[in-house]
Amino acid sequence: MDDQQDVSRRTAEEQVPGFGSVEEARSSASRAYELDRKHVFHSWVAQGAFKPMVVTAAQGSHVWDGNGDRLLDFSSQLVNTNIGHQHPRVVAGIVEQAQRLATIAPHHVNDQRSEAARLIAERTPGDLDKVFFTNSGAEAVEHAIRMARVHTGRNKILSRYRSYHGATALAINVTGDPRRWANDRGTEGTTHFFGPFLYRSAFHATTEAEEEQRALQHLQQVIELEGPGTIAAIILETIPGGPGIIPPPPGYLRGVRELCDLHGIVMIADEVMCGFGRSGHWFAIDESGVAPDLLAFAKGVNSGYVPLGGVAISARVAETFEERPYPGGLTYSGHPLACAAAVATITAMADEGIVENARRIGETVLGPGLAEIAARHPCVGEARGRGVFWALELVTDATTREPLAPYAGTSAAMAEMMAECKRQGLLPLMVSNRIHCAPPCTITADEAREGLRILDEVLKIGDSYTV
Amino acid sequence: MDDQQDVSRRTAEEQVPGFGSVEEARSSASRAYELDRKHVFHSWVAQGAFKPMVVTAAQGSHVWDGNGDRLLDFSSQLVNTNIGHQHPRVVAGIVEQAQRLATIAPHHVNDQRSEAARLIAERTPGDLDKVFFTNSGAEAVEHAIRMARVHTGRNKILSRYRSYHGATALAINVTGDPRRWANDRGTEGTTHFFGPFLYRSAFHATTEAEEEQRALQHLQQVIELEGPGTIAAIILETIPGGPGIIPPPPGYLRGVRELCDLHGIVMIADEVMCGFGRSGHWFAIDESGVAPDLLAFAKGVNSGYVPLGGVAISARVAETFEERPYPGGLTYSGHPLACAAAVATITAMADEGIVENARRIGETVLGPGLAEIAARHPCVGEARGRGVFWALELVTDATTREPLAPYAGTSAAMAEMMAECKRQGLLPLMVSNRIHCAPPCTITADEAREGLRILDEVLKIGDSYTV
Repeated sequence: MDDQQDVSRRTAEEQVPGFGSVEEARSSASRAYELDRKHVFHSWVAQGAFKPMVVTAAQGSHVWDGNGDRLLDFSSQLVNTNIGHQHPRVVAGIVEQAQRLATIAPHHVNDQRSEAARLIAERTPGDLDKVFFTNSGAEAVEHAIRMARVHTGRNKILSRYRSYHGATALAINVTGDPRRWANDRGTEGTTHFFGPFLYRSAFHATTEAEEEQRALQHLQQVIELEGPGTIAAIILETIPGGPGIIPPPPGYLRGVRELCDLHGIVMIADEVMCGFGRSGHWFAIDESGVAPDLLAFAKGVNSGYVPLGGVAISARVAETFEERPYPGGLTYSGHPLACAAAVATITAMADEGIVENARRIGETVLGPGLAEIAARHPCVGEARGRGVFWALELVTDATTREPLAPYAGTSAAMAEMMAECKRQGLLPLMVSNRIHCAPPCTITADEAREGLRILDEVLKIGDSYTV
Repeated sequence: MDDQQDVSRRTAEEQVPGFGSVEEARSSASRAYELDRKHVFHSWVAQGAFKPMVVTAAQGSHVWDGNGDRLLDFSSQLVNTNIGHQHPRVVAGIVEQAQRLATIAPHHVNDQRSEAARLIAERTPGDLDKVFFTNSGAEAVEHAIRMARVHTGRNKILSRYRSYHGATALAINVTGDPRRWANDRGTEGTTHFFGPFLYRSAFHATTEAEEEQRALQHLQQVIELEGPGTIAAIILETIPGGPGIIPPPPGYLRGVRELCDLHGIVMIADEVMCGFGRSGHWFAIDESGVAPDLLAFAKGVNSGYVPLGGVAISARVAETFEERPYPGGLTYSGHPLACAAAVATITAMADEGIVENARRIGETVLGPGLAEIAARHPCVGEARGRGVFWALELVTDATTREPLAPYAGTSAAMAEMMAECKRQGLLPLMVSNRIHCAPPCTITADEAREGLRILDEVLKIGDSYTV
């Protein structure tokens, strides 16, 4: 089915890691696909028409599909495999811990949990020195909000439009992207405000400085009109991820921090997607020079090799729970196997300069390369991002900025480009009218350039849809 | 510190698994404890005074504490290590998968996820043949409720007092035990009803048959008065676990099923704690002969070696999402490593007759043994349970049934008994005024008898508190 001249993904005559032959991989994939369609219920989609891709193997920056073809992973799956696929030190950490002590209850002390907490606390900004572990980012957000509510004695949560905070009931309620709609049962204690997003400014701003100033003024007004004394927390992704990879103007987060301080509001940074190297820093908020009161993390903490999330807690919030029981918990809080994977991941990232690599790739390859692509292709309205965390905002008209797909949907153009990317051996994430480029933080400059080369080809399809 | 005559846990001169010497284990434990108190934020407790026990190793039915002493695990941690600690086949399954493919996004097909779904669907009752995977029981409950709400177009959820469904906002909202209180923001779409619990009957019943009949009549009245057309789902733990291990009268679940069918209400069985062998059946609901519409699971599915939960979905509910997107998802849905652990666990449980062992131990050792203990000790009001899932309900007065600790708290008597259990080498769960005995499903008759022997000793302390 795939007989083009491009050779980047050709493995039909080669090996698929872990399989004796390509035929063997295909046969395994075929059975996996059949059972999947029969028994697996998938996230976010209508089950009937869903035709998922099989992944049979993964190594470093690549995955192999059900046909045995290799794809360059510009998705990091769901932007979680920051350390790349099958990193040998993380695999070894999991293997060793599985053989020693896979699981133990959260009310007992475990050495891997202790060490993971130490390594995280060493890296989080400010005095966020205690860690509550969860299984996921959604649970991290749920617990961060609970801590803020108990700490302040207030109920209301302010969050951004164009945000994603997870899919449990409370986390989806604070989410500000279309995934909330079908779950919206009234705001139940949540108020959404507009964050800074110059390309589609809610404030009629024309410069970044103006956008920053007006966004903060807007937030200040929302706080005043909602009633500062009713607001427990402001939660925001440091760099909103799924909703568009939108880095804030340089002084925005400091402004939010000041508003929080002024009104005794807890500042929660959601670093589930942008944390642990993704932005070219350990945490995206490092760039702003401010520290939140609570920081929710997941994904990159152990690259998702074992489910793990958590909340890093400031001394002030932790103090609230010194005498008073924290009213929450979970069976796998601080799971030894998940924490061992975090210990191995963080240690390898530090030893191997992986965060620095992400920054360098962003500054020297992806940033300039995507800017060139944006300049060359009429369908690219904007390229924006940091480190290995970039979005191409696609439009049919550079002047009106009409999106190439509707806000909560997709389009023929996007579907064609996705198919062509895969055909040429690239696996990006397509979200609404955007192509998200989020390769592992370990990606080499050559691999990143190869991805850009394919994107440059594929975007000709998008260009053909412009007016 | 521990120089008694009892030898069951003495290992001071022996090895702690995974350590070269007891000294080495103690030194590791000491560092783990120190870092824990500095950096780890724990579930459900006030952080300041919390003095957790270190666990350095675990094998089969035993764990080793920070002193290098061995304890017989009657807790299965948080009632999750159904297959015992470090089962070699589950460890091997994790090791193999970690080396092959630790993680892949939920929108791609993975062979371990497919196979785990098949093995689960083969065992769930009725036509629950599709599986949506989560990381935890709380998330399973969150998603089951969402499915029920979208499926019915109704909002309200009925759940039992004396229930526990997890600690995310929605899951704690349907929970009917004291852990809800500090999180209670109004019922937000939840109504609690009384379930059958003869020992503390809400219906003034004196026989099990009467309790069953009156509990169903009560539920019928609640449904009528709440308005059948407003109720999306009735969720209930088949055997309420954390709140007291309360097996329902034999016809109760059939009665609930009939009420659900009559009013188009989705029946959700929460089998997070009681499922996967715990009750001596694959699922506790098997004993009732009825099938729910949705079944939430976690814990025993892979004994918690890797965080995993999920919802088994009936054909009728699944049909709703054939054409219509399911509005929910998560990064680690169907995580390959977690699913590989489930495949290994379920296969080993089936091959080794582990569910049958749990039933046999319940019928021949724990059931009769705890009944004898209840008859001998004035502080034991009732012993109840199934398989390897038992509670001793402790009272100060057999006539008034005054609990030995308040409903939402603990007491000196309970604390003394916990300390004495540990001193004698037994690790049960103490919950409010109850001792929960939930050893692994793999426990031998001799080990179970050893646990009973220690309990028999320790309960003399409880007796001294009776009037």
